[in-house]
Amino acid sequence: MFALDPAFLATSQALASLPLCEARLQLDARFAWIVLVPRIADAVEIEDLSVEERAMLTAEIVVAGAAVRAVGAALERPVEKLNVGQLGNLTRQLHFHVVGRRADDPAWPGPVWGQGAAEPYDSGSLATATRAAIDVLGG
Amino acid sequence: MFALDPAFLATSQALASLPLCEARLQLDARFAWIVLVPRIADAVEIEDLSVEERAMLTAEIVVAGAAVRAVGAALERPVEKLNVGQLGNLTRQLHFHVVGRRADDPAWPGPVWGQGAAEPYDSGSLATATRAAIDVLGG
Repeated sequence: MFALDPAFLATSQALASLPLCEARLQLDARFAWIVLVPRIADAVEIEDLSVEERAMLTAEIVVAGAAVRAVGAALERPVEKLNVGQLGNLTRQLHFHVVGRRADDPAWPGPVWGQGAAEPYDSGSLATATRAAIDVLGG
Repeated sequence: MFALDPAFLATSQALASLPLCEARLQLDARFAWIVLVPRIADAVEIEDLSVEERAMLTAEIVVAGAAVRAVGAALERPVEKLNVGQLGNLTRQLHFHVVGRRADDPAWPGPVWGQGAAEPYDSGSLATATRAAIDVLGG
């Protein structure tokens, strides 16, 4: 049975349950950043998904990209480039990062993973980001 | 019309033309690493691919993962985890990294992108890696 790895609870917040994935907002105000976790027990790699699940996954990655762009726009930091990553070196449960990047962000042009400490959202920005993402993802 | 960005020529070597992507071996002996470049003119993000192309893409990412595992096995450094990344912050042409990771590799558990300098293959290892990858990808 699928259960979300507790590691995600500390670093992200629920946005929406998509057909395949739990979509979560990464709690790092430096980047517009959504994490997708397929609700498939014991999945670690993309190869662990069926062909149908992979099709759902790519559709949800594209929707998460649109949501990340909406978050960036709502916070007046429009996204200039999307980055998508599936690593899982620390948290094995299969998950995908969809991250909005800007040339003035603190990790540019490198990857965001493992770069510096997360910066907490203030409550107003968190509400704005959450609302913008859910408007795109569905509630 | 599609033309491979010249940036890939300096850092990788052709392995196979898959139905959607050019598959190339990253010339960095530190990691078993394949780069996939969809032959779609002007594509920058996954959203620029059609639904059919996205299905081909995920299939090719899975095959590239198997090829990366074969490279690791052939070089007696079995892959323990796959990492997949689509960044494009420096080279905009849409491309995907499929990287074999090990807990003893020089970037573990962080991402490989932007970490240290590439290490050249010796000619024997390059031939072994190339052959192992092509055996999986098709020639």
